[in-house]
Amino acid sequence: MSILVVGSVAFDGMETPSGKRDRVLGGAATHFALAASFFTPVRMIAVVGEDFGPAEESVLTSRGIDTRGIEHVPGKSFFWRGAYLRDLNQADTLLTELNVFESFAPKLPAAYTDSEYLFLANIDPVLQERVRAQLPGVRMVCGDTMNYWISSHRDNLLRVLRGLDTLLINDGEARLLSGQANLRRAAEAILALGPRSLIVKHGEYGATAFFSERSFAGAPAPHPVVFRAPTLPLAEVVDPTGAGDSFAGGFFGSLAEAGVVTPATWKRAMFYGAALGAFACERFGTERVQSLTREEIEARVGELRTLSHLE
Amino acid sequence: MSILVVGSVAFDGMETPSGKRDRVLGGAATHFALAASFFTPVRMIAVVGEDFGPAEESVLTSRGIDTRGIEHVPGKSFFWRGAYLRDLNQADTLLTELNVFESFAPKLPAAYTDSEYLFLANIDPVLQERVRAQLPGVRMVCGDTMNYWISSHRDNLLRVLRGLDTLLINDGEARLLSGQANLRRAAEAILALGPRSLIVKHGEYGATAFFSERSFAGAPAPHPVVFRAPTLPLAEVVDPTGAGDSFAGGFFGSLAEAGVVTPATWKRAMFYGAALGAFACERFGTERVQSLTREEIEARVGELRTLSHLE
Repeated sequence: MSILVVGSVAFDGMETPSGKRDRVLGGAATHFALAASFFTPVRMIAVVGEDFGPAEESVLTSRGIDTRGIEHVPGKSFFWRGAYLRDLNQADTLLTELNVFESFAPKLPAAYTDSEYLFLANIDPVLQERVRAQLPGVRMVCGDTMNYWISSHRDNLLRVLRGLDTLLINDGEARLLSGQANLRRAAEAILALGPRSLIVKHGEYGATAFFSERSFAGAPAPHPVVFRAPTLPLAEVVDPTGAGDSFAGGFFGSLAEAGVVTPATWKRAMFYGAALGAFACERFGTERVQSLTREEIEARVGELRTLSHLE
Repeated sequence: MSILVVGSVAFDGMETPSGKRDRVLGGAATHFALAASFFTPVRMIAVVGEDFGPAEESVLTSRGIDTRGIEHVPGKSFFWRGAYLRDLNQADTLLTELNVFESFAPKLPAAYTDSEYLFLANIDPVLQERVRAQLPGVRMVCGDTMNYWISSHRDNLLRVLRGLDTLLINDGEARLLSGQANLRRAAEAILALGPRSLIVKHGEYGATAFFSERSFAGAPAPHPVVFRAPTLPLAEVVDPTGAGDSFAGGFFGSLAEAGVVTPATWKRAMFYGAALGAFACERFGTERVQSLTREEIEARVGELRTLSHLE
């Protein structure tokens, strides 16, 4: 079933202990879409400038991604430059040029209105809400956000949260949003804000999902359910940019492929997310995920299972 | 099969967001012994002062722990005071009074010489080595250490590492010992120093074990094996003091109970370690583990399995 993702398509420059890239294709929507494309058809809504040409487009279309919702406008695409020299778990942003992204006004192509799954990547919650409102019949909505929206656009974000099936954020964002340092208490506070479930990403330590009683239609859990997916310890984290979006793409793509949300499909989806997140770190930008195969993904889920399951 | 533990028996004072204790029974050997006592007979070698009386002794003996190796000498017992107000994952040490521990010279009672499992808790590596040398027929030796010994007594520590079956340390210690920030590379570097296997504890994020080809006699793994145990996210971490030692006690106790080290018994032992580590955090000092039952431990291992295993 089709996933529609709305978010950034960008060019990134980054330096890590493994090396340097001046300019590679990036953006949350790009990383999400590539990861999800191994599981289900993906449609994108984004905006790019004149520097986004056939070479960039083909990275997406060669994975079968529907790019009709990527609007091309005069000017330059969103550009971000960062470094992970101090800490591989946290980028130091050196430069952010919003460029054409500054006036991004998401437009839903008519062909996209039957999308059943919607991923709201990290953008202004006002835009997230606007896209969500145009898809009244959507079956499941997941969303991401970041510290800036939590701190400075909280009311707008809270409206988005009330419409989310799943919020995917990292540890720092969960603490900031909830005001709680304790993970379980943070999760309780966030679920009380509206999302029916929550995934908190712990970077190199995996991710934890919290379900409320409302998470599974037809199969209500008597108590909040907690589930943790591990990560694969990599001998070299070449570039963590996009790992969280790749996790989200693997997770949501796998759920859409299953077509039904149950504890079993949810847990398996978290392992697919962990697999895609790990692959994303193995090379710069989209390099590794571009060249992936479904067989490699299945093998990695097997590794993650062996890594974490009792015999 | 009997586990012998050598290490500190102390009094601790601590303040955490949940409250304050001026003086409770603590020390690495105490936490380890209590946790391991649910699985196998435990013997202790330690030194205490005149402030360690029948009440403290009975905390240990009521769990069936053999305390004949605890030497009573004039003076006061080791005292430590710390606070976890800034960060629950890391204590700020406010006071350390070594007292009688300063001249600790471990003495092995004749009745202990048939001990088959040995745990060298965090003490001077010279003392660890001395105890190890008195048990030439021991089947398995696990050890802990800390930043001070890694930085300032490295050569002594390296001699101990060469004799270890398993080194149990935390993330920061692994980085310091190996000079590597990457977990997998740190593990490779540490295994090259001699220990046949390594467990790195990640606090609230669980623990990762690395086996080398030499880890399992008779069942050599073709490649290094990695295994991760999760933690249970607790709604309240009352006091993390001793959680790492409780993990070690649950892990090593379970392995000793199994009587054979295989990938299967090892992995199960890690889950027992995770269970005991979580229990230790639920109340101050030894309060929670003192009152535990084996049934509660089994239930928690079940929770950890549900929390982390695909259906």
